[in-house]
Amino acid sequence: MIRSISDLVVINLRNINIVNYAKYSSSALPRLSSEKYNIKRKNYGAIKPPDIDYFKSLLSNDRVLTEESDVLPFNIDWIKNCRGQSKVVLKPKTTEEVSQILSYCNDRKLAVCPQGGNTGLVGGSVPVFDEIVLNLSSMNKIISLDEISGALVCEAGCVLENLDNYVRDHNLIMPLDLGAKGSCHIGGNVSTNAGGLRLLRYGNLHGSILGIEAVKADGTVIDCLRTLKKDNTGYHLKHLFIGSEGTLGVVTKVAVHCPALSKSVSLGYFGVNSFEDVLELYKSAKESLGEILSAFEMADNEAISSTVENCKLSNPLEDYPFYVLIETSGSDESHDDEKLNRFLTKEMESGKIVDGTITSEPAKMKNIWNIRESIPGAGLLDGYVFKYDISIPLKNYYDIVLLLRKRMGNKVTRVYGYGHIGDGNIHINVSTPEYSKEICDMLEPYVFEEVAKVKGSISAEHGVGFRKPQFIHYSKDGTALQLMRDLKQCMDPNGILNPYKVLPDN
Amino acid sequence: MIRSISDLVVINLRNINIVNYAKYSSSALPRLSSEKYNIKRKNYGAIKPPDIDYFKSLLSNDRVLTEESDVLPFNIDWIKNCRGQSKVVLKPKTTEEVSQILSYCNDRKLAVCPQGGNTGLVGGSVPVFDEIVLNLSSMNKIISLDEISGALVCEAGCVLENLDNYVRDHNLIMPLDLGAKGSCHIGGNVSTNAGGLRLLRYGNLHGSILGIEAVKADGTVIDCLRTLKKDNTGYHLKHLFIGSEGTLGVVTKVAVHCPALSKSVSLGYFGVNSFEDVLELYKSAKESLGEILSAFEMADNEAISSTVENCKLSNPLEDYPFYVLIETSGSDESHDDEKLNRFLTKEMESGKIVDGTITSEPAKMKNIWNIRESIPGAGLLDGYVFKYDISIPLKNYYDIVLLLRKRMGNKVTRVYGYGHIGDGNIHINVSTPEYSKEICDMLEPYVFEEVAKVKGSISAEHGVGFRKPQFIHYSKDGTALQLMRDLKQCMDPNGILNPYKVLPDN
Repeated sequence: MIRSISDLVVINLRNINIVNYAKYSSSALPRLSSEKYNIKRKNYGAIKPPDIDYFKSLLSNDRVLTEESDVLPFNIDWIKNCRGQSKVVLKPKTTEEVSQILSYCNDRKLAVCPQGGNTGLVGGSVPVFDEIVLNLSSMNKIISLDEISGALVCEAGCVLENLDNYVRDHNLIMPLDLGAKGSCHIGGNVSTNAGGLRLLRYGNLHGSILGIEAVKADGTVIDCLRTLKKDNTGYHLKHLFIGSEGTLGVVTKVAVHCPALSKSVSLGYFGVNSFEDVLELYKSAKESLGEILSAFEMADNEAISSTVENCKLSNPLEDYPFYVLIETSGSDESHDDEKLNRFLTKEMESGKIVDGTITSEPAKMKNIWNIRESIPGAGLLDGYVFKYDISIPLKNYYDIVLLLRKRMGNKVTRVYGYGHIGDGNIHINVSTPEYSKEICDMLEPYVFEEVAKVKGSISAEHGVGFRKPQFIHYSKDGTALQLMRDLKQCMDPNGILNPYKVLPDN
Repeated sequence: MIRSISDLVVINLRNINIVNYAKYSSSALPRLSSEKYNIKRKNYGAIKPPDIDYFKSLLSNDRVLTEESDVLPFNIDWIKNCRGQSKVVLKPKTTEEVSQILSYCNDRKLAVCPQGGNTGLVGGSVPVFDEIVLNLSSMNKIISLDEISGALVCEAGCVLENLDNYVRDHNLIMPLDLGAKGSCHIGGNVSTNAGGLRLLRYGNLHGSILGIEAVKADGTVIDCLRTLKKDNTGYHLKHLFIGSEGTLGVVTKVAVHCPALSKSVSLGYFGVNSFEDVLELYKSAKESLGEILSAFEMADNEAISSTVENCKLSNPLEDYPFYVLIETSGSDESHDDEKLNRFLTKEMESGKIVDGTITSEPAKMKNIWNIRESIPGAGLLDGYVFKYDISIPLKNYYDIVLLLRKRMGNKVTRVYGYGHIGDGNIHINVSTPEYSKEICDMLEPYVFEEVAKVKGSISAEHGVGFRKPQFIHYSKDGTALQLMRDLKQCMDPNGILNPYKVLPDN
């Protein structure tokens, strides 16, 4: 049965700052990361009063935070898993300031934690010990937009959603979209090679980023901020900073290729009876919708029902084992409608779509997307969430959820899976009343071992950060790890940039 | 007037091996690169009989070429510009053999020139002095193809056209296409970040390459041969080997994401009166054709008329100042036809399209593409061609051709421009009866200075190779060049991989 969703009443969480939302959902502070994970401080310099004086002379006083209560929010990640012990937060406004800060820290061997919107899920954006937090939020200027080529140039601290709103006014869109869009920074997106909801259509950031300006650990500014689509003059240095999570340099400016805003966008939200049918629908959608398919997302019943329950949303569909969300974006509404209706008719007749709704009204689409985008945060309202973000061959895509449900039994509140079928990327959430070492040990490295068995990735889009260096070998072999270490040594010989992250100890 | 092209008679050069075609079009050998460009040999080891014995023990005798006449073709690039002095060509069949060869050469400080299909245009794939030619043509096996995800895994020596034919049988296409497809290797494509005709639609290789296996100078095999679309586990090492032209490692295997083969493909070939109209047509095509636009190419009258004349082809259109070639690829023929016809009707009425033909018959499309793809080779039949491959903002796109015509006057045979409007990439050819230092000095660095004035790239897709290191500073600043040197030092401390290429002398 295809129905209108006019009766859909949902609380629009989209514009709520997801970081604050999570941070204040519990009054208890997380344990210190160093104690929780038994980490030893490395031999970096300790910050002393003359250092603070230097930073204050460089920045204005209000951009050097040292009060404990001011610094605390910058020490905690938004899933309340990690807590660092930084004593100072610096908020540079220019690349030159970033360069001078890093040059000084490098000379004094002071460790630095670069921080964007702090929406990461692996503890990469908060300090572990007393690293200086280098927060980029004051570098938030849009520099230029070329409407014909689609090249947007901006500072690293621009919030993704602000950029998307800006380029939409010029008939363009950002090539990436993710649930944290209201808080995350483009610099953090680039540094973590963020994926998200549009990757199926517009590819990953290695393809979309035209240029980068970054500052190396010693303060050297690397200016690769070109806006050209094609430039084969020497090594493609910008890719060193995409996905290296602030350990090789601090991204200060980016040039992004923005695709044209589609004239016609539609959304379908369907109830499906089995994961096999979800897969068949994906094949069928690629066939029928071709070049207008812009998202193909799935969520299991537990993911949707817990989100609807925790966030007090309303689900326009009844209970089904699986839900599929399909977005189309094209240049001709009548053509796109014809393709989507043809797909729908075919798959309702085949029985793979049991129930569903399609809409191209912006408010209704926003409400449906809101359910999907609320899933990552909703689990926090159960107390604590163990999150796994894995790439896996499609035929094995959902197996791990079933394995985990069996393994964890009633020791946990829920186990559920959702994600980007088109990219082979599933997110698995295991929610519990609170963090438990026993549960953690039952999950890890078990999940990673299962992923390694099918040559998957133990971190499809969230990165390695603080939480996964000890598991990286499940997806990277020894020679690749050695090359990573060589590059780190080459570009940051004192190891001041984002220590305790990404690279495993020898 | 829109006409059928049934009367089009063209010689199909597409399946002629472009390398041989060029190589034997003149009997004169090019001068030695070292003399022509006044280069000094660096302090590498010299190959001695025990080295040859070692290589013969490692490979079979027939995969170690040492006869002068056997080695000669591997010393000369296909535009007859460069000639090296190598005494030995090695043809490994496995990654293990490549590893052993490099390990040995690294210990003995023997310089190595990795070579794919040898279709490069900047002398990057032939030796300068006595570097060992490491030719990958015997590593030409297709390893696997996942039809659902589109992941193709193959060895580096596979010829691009063979791969395209193979995946087409599985309803997929390669994400890149270029005139040299019949000879170029996928490993060379990756090492040079080849662009070509499909970049507008499918993006560059940094986005399409899923995984790479490469061998470092010391013989270490770096296995990043994953087939996952998303994998954020640590540094994205594969990008170090994309576009570094064999100076950081030898690519031995690749995993490529192949897009779905479009069910409907059409080609339009139009005569246009001015470059301003070409630009207006591009904007209009993006608007009207949207997501089905897969190529937008332009060529000026001189480019087409010289190609038609030199290659004895037939032009289905009469003489016009500019020609535009538009390809659409989509999933629904009737929708695509409607979009293309709407565009055509509009732009014939506007007068921007003066004459033209559209077709979706494969043989006719092949004939039209053949004219476009013959342009790069056709100039060689004038004798010698100075080739420039630049990225430039669209508003300045064609200026440089006019400037050069004025500057060169009747000192040269022809000056013409053609290229990929959608990517801001124009190819400029200056043909002369033979190579002339005087002409070269009039062209260089003049062309690069003009490009630098508008912040363009002096090498959009051809790379730096042997011919452009001394000009790289027009597109890369000093700190970026230093980082390139640091990476080279880190990954190839003895500098044995493709010396005299890419990196300028200090």
